[in-house]
Amino acid sequence: MTAFPTDHVAPAEVLTGPAPLAPVEPAPLRSPAEEARTIVANGKLAALATASEDGAPWASLVIYAPLEDGSPVLCLSTLAEHGRNVVRDPRASLVIGQADVIGDPLDSGRVTLAGELVEVEGDELEAAKAAYKRAAPASGLYGNFPDFTYYVLRIDRVRWVGGYGRMDSADPGQYRAAAPDPSAPGADYAIRHLNEDHADALLQMAQQLGGYPDATKAKAVRIDRLGLDLRVTTPRGTSETRLAFAEPATAPGDLRVATVELAKRARGAS
Amino acid sequence: MTAFPTDHVAPAEVLTGPAPLAPVEPAPLRSPAEEARTIVANGKLAALATASEDGAPWASLVIYAPLEDGSPVLCLSTLAEHGRNVVRDPRASLVIGQADVIGDPLDSGRVTLAGELVEVEGDELEAAKAAYKRAAPASGLYGNFPDFTYYVLRIDRVRWVGGYGRMDSADPGQYRAAAPDPSAPGADYAIRHLNEDHADALLQMAQQLGGYPDATKAKAVRIDRLGLDLRVTTPRGTSETRLAFAEPATAPGDLRVATVELAKRARGAS
Repeated sequence: MTAFPTDHVAPAEVLTGPAPLAPVEPAPLRSPAEEARTIVANGKLAALATASEDGAPWASLVIYAPLEDGSPVLCLSTLAEHGRNVVRDPRASLVIGQADVIGDPLDSGRVTLAGELVEVEGDELEAAKAAYKRAAPASGLYGNFPDFTYYVLRIDRVRWVGGYGRMDSADPGQYRAAAPDPSAPGADYAIRHLNEDHADALLQMAQQLGGYPDATKAKAVRIDRLGLDLRVTTPRGTSETRLAFAEPATAPGDLRVATVELAKRARGAS
Repeated sequence: MTAFPTDHVAPAEVLTGPAPLAPVEPAPLRSPAEEARTIVANGKLAALATASEDGAPWASLVIYAPLEDGSPVLCLSTLAEHGRNVVRDPRASLVIGQADVIGDPLDSGRVTLAGELVEVEGDELEAAKAAYKRAAPASGLYGNFPDFTYYVLRIDRVRWVGGYGRMDSADPGQYRAAAPDPSAPGADYAIRHLNEDHADALLQMAQQLGGYPDATKAKAVRIDRLGLDLRVTTPRGTSETRLAFAEPATAPGDLRVATVELAKRARGAS
């Protein structure tokens, strides 16, 4: 790795935009482990990388279901190349993308998990089958064919990418111990609703709380249990700012409460 | 591979449904090479499988752009693991899924391409950059950073999966020589429109042309330049049937002409 540069060689403002003109209250972020658990908990489609007979990588599409600790269960057939690859070499990796991506897909969340696929046996098998059937109802039909095997990925490595310039690795233990963001199922709706019906409130938040008094437009781009990310247009260029919620959201419906509070605070400060 | 069974061990009707009761005109299918080219031409998001330093598979998300012959161009940074992997071992595989999947994602189309990633150089580079920028506009910004390299996948293997029980491999030469289905950009709209506004016509097609005079319901599930696939409900169970178009569609708008002709023929036969 030392042969490679460690950062993009470009002026910082190309990637980050103009700096805020007023102080901004520090806003906590979800940990990389929580980011990863959240994406994994809210998806069911993944791409699987396995090693072919000659060691060359092989990419395929799979459905997965996460167990309680975020370990994904797969159900693979030896009629498919990935199923035969795994019998020979259990090393595998999954990439799981955020559902419902709007805009540039490289500016959206995804997680790579890597480790070994281990056949699920004994007491674990019924729980794994039940979890898998919720994600893939048709597996009730094919899951018991003799060419299919249920596997769980024993995770060695977790790499989260949230979008341009937002990425980090997580320790596998931290990943298993973290919980998915409970507000996540409400995030897409909240973003759409804020942008469609509350553009004025978003602009006031950017001007009064976000450090951009010169903002002329503000758009909600991400929301999570801890805060709201705005993309801010100013005469100096486009930037992003994050606003902390007064209280963390603990359910999808809390996102409304938290953003109403932000709007009130911004109005009060103006 | 000989150690593995070569087909699912299950009663055929579980997967295929009841047989037709009347003769059906044979309906041509797109070749596996055309199926693969069509999926690749209409997507831009792929999962990339590369080999990590220890040879373990690594899955990541990428944007690709196909060249004229269907070979995908990638733009990878050595700041990302996949970019470093490829410098060490150029063997790679992409899986590309059909856009806009409705219903069970394993019953939808995807293609695995495998081969070697070769750096694009000389005359090819400008064409590759231009194609890539159409798929990933932001690459105009980052594509020239020194940590990014443009690659083209030199394809050794092509595996197409169309859904349950629909899959085949294609020879790389056939893949490069095939053309994407020119009607494909109109397929999603045609399927939705047929199911929402022409359920009666679909039922008549299934009964009069599709070999299921006992059909009680028919739903359009796939459409391509050569024909229309219907899912048919009968008192004997659910099955699928394919209806050949009188003339192949050569543009998205031709799908309307072709299905109107099918509806007329079905009406005339009743």
